[in-house]
Amino acid sequence: VTSEASSSASPVAPQDSAAPVVAVDCNGADLGPAEVAAGAAIAASQGTRVILFGPASELGEQPDGVEVIDAPVSIAKAEDPVSAARSTPEASIVQAARAVAQGRAQALVCAGGTGAALAAGSFNIKRARGIYRPALAIPLPVPRRPVTLLDVGANAEARLEHLVQFAFMGAALARTVLGVPRPRVGLLSNSVEAARGSALVIETHDALLARVAGGIEAFEFVGNVEGGDVVAGVADVIVTDGFTGNIALKLMEGVSQTILGAVRDAAMSSTRAKLGGMLLRGALGGFREELDPEAHGGAYLLGLRRLGVVPHGRFTRTGFAQAILRAERGAREDLVGQTQRALEAAGALRRSPMSAQAASLRQTG
Amino acid sequence: VTSEASSSASPVAPQDSAAPVVAVDCNGADLGPAEVAAGAAIAASQGTRVILFGPASELGEQPDGVEVIDAPVSIAKAEDPVSAARSTPEASIVQAARAVAQGRAQALVCAGGTGAALAAGSFNIKRARGIYRPALAIPLPVPRRPVTLLDVGANAEARLEHLVQFAFMGAALARTVLGVPRPRVGLLSNSVEAARGSALVIETHDALLARVAGGIEAFEFVGNVEGGDVVAGVADVIVTDGFTGNIALKLMEGVSQTILGAVRDAAMSSTRAKLGGMLLRGALGGFREELDPEAHGGAYLLGLRRLGVVPHGRFTRTGFAQAILRAERGAREDLVGQTQRALEAAGALRRSPMSAQAASLRQTG
Repeated sequence: VTSEASSSASPVAPQDSAAPVVAVDCNGADLGPAEVAAGAAIAASQGTRVILFGPASELGEQPDGVEVIDAPVSIAKAEDPVSAARSTPEASIVQAARAVAQGRAQALVCAGGTGAALAAGSFNIKRARGIYRPALAIPLPVPRRPVTLLDVGANAEARLEHLVQFAFMGAALARTVLGVPRPRVGLLSNSVEAARGSALVIETHDALLARVAGGIEAFEFVGNVEGGDVVAGVADVIVTDGFTGNIALKLMEGVSQTILGAVRDAAMSSTRAKLGGMLLRGALGGFREELDPEAHGGAYLLGLRRLGVVPHGRFTRTGFAQAILRAERGAREDLVGQTQRALEAAGALRRSPMSAQAASLRQTG
Repeated sequence: VTSEASSSASPVAPQDSAAPVVAVDCNGADLGPAEVAAGAAIAASQGTRVILFGPASELGEQPDGVEVIDAPVSIAKAEDPVSAARSTPEASIVQAARAVAQGRAQALVCAGGTGAALAAGSFNIKRARGIYRPALAIPLPVPRRPVTLLDVGANAEARLEHLVQFAFMGAALARTVLGVPRPRVGLLSNSVEAARGSALVIETHDALLARVAGGIEAFEFVGNVEGGDVVAGVADVIVTDGFTGNIALKLMEGVSQTILGAVRDAAMSSTRAKLGGMLLRGALGGFREELDPEAHGGAYLLGLRRLGVVPHGRFTRTGFAQAILRAERGAREDLVGQTQRALEAAGALRRSPMSAQAASLRQTG
């Protein structure tokens, strides 16, 4: 067990794709840091190497493949995660992000809240070259029709070029981590018609069509999709701005919980109903499993130089293990590099001011 | 049975609030115009006077209180409802809207699609004085926690002053038609924090706060609400732009159907489960009834000089009867006038160019 609080960040080191290490922030989980460590032990038993950042005194002995860095300070519940991430270099999430930035680990998992992960990740791991904005993607537990929605809240506003990149980022996630060979990507709108929707959606639709004209390997663009299509299996990835995506995600969670709660209440309302509920329980079990958000590891922080995964704070060890295993898979399959190459091939990378100038000089010269 | 296809529209006549008449477009219902007429008969049996616009040959004999105007031409399925409403004066929805504009009826019900109702209503009934934009409001069938969402798609984009008016329009609907004495109004966002959200939401929040400062009778402003709050009972009315609202509405419908379908499938998956499902059916019945969208009459077209109600095309006579009864109630309780007076008191009416100029002259003079 060592302590580390240096604030010097070196550039991201080249990736050892053979054996990625996952840096895990243990603070912030509802069940406590030890539950995250228990998840890490499960992942380690499947061969994944993990560095845990959390209170060593609460984490105890770890199995082979799991290292502990004592980092008791948590900013998981900070009211302003951005300033907390800046001003608290000793915080576990900041140390974990720095370990990734320094090449000691190749992916980040943060049990301590999306805001802290986003801030610490952006400051330390930094955006990947040519990416305008990071995005949060979440694989939704829709029975038989899994779909990944992004952005679910990294940015409250989006521009055309952001949404275009989100399509490529989400497709690369679906391909590498979720195992969809050629993802179908849709653009969330109030109509399937290309000419309707907000001004942003109309221009993004056209830009995406232009980027994929002639066919690309990265994904298939299925056009605009409506709210109901999120659960209809028409797309593997659905792109939207972080404002709309965040509302959609929380609405889905709320509606699911409300309906399942009402079914549960109905099954407790009389002796007859109770018996019915008991008999039905087994058959509903499989369905509940499909709805289980822990199976998908949580939210994915895309657009940085390394992949981040943010399991929900209420997860158990099973969910934390999934998050770590999927983070490792994303690093091993080079999610970031695949995103980059697809964006480059489509001409959708942000050009640095210098290269934009050079290109403009070439054109006019 | 008379036919009417004149295109001359006189100004909206003063309202006879004692005995409102409801103009009903019968074309476009999945079950056919006769099903809408059957709904009208139910409403008439409760004392509501109705004028039906539809194919007289399919509508048959009507009870006392129900008049039929032969209007067989339908634009319910028109690909471009706006141009269809302009170019088809003989269409049933155009005739019904004109009857309202001319004061022969005091509210409009349209079974033939939102687009057609919105276009025909806007052209013929016209916006109420001082209203920027009409909005579509829909009372959501959330068990034990009914909530009205607007705009669900009349406009794909909204500005600050539109959202402010939507709050007053939704509150007046909740008060007069849905029976909520002092509605709690929330603003849909990706966070409950006033300082977060899209730029539009942040400025609308501030503008609403300013409008209700010191307390108003029209409603209570509960601030920003998140996606999950739509089903959490924290507000009676939730305001958003038509892009977000439309996505939220269709997403809710999709998620509800998916989950209820999965429960149904589970209850058919084995003999044991089938028996459980049978025993549970009675208890689930009440819950299904609460989820029934027909109970709320459909969507409400607000912001015109008279109230419009758009029941869903798949409704049965029960839903059409509800739509007609609620349209009548909105007219009787003067929903439009109440909206107007609350907006006026809050200084949130659009000023005509002339009066704006006059005000500016007074200020500078």
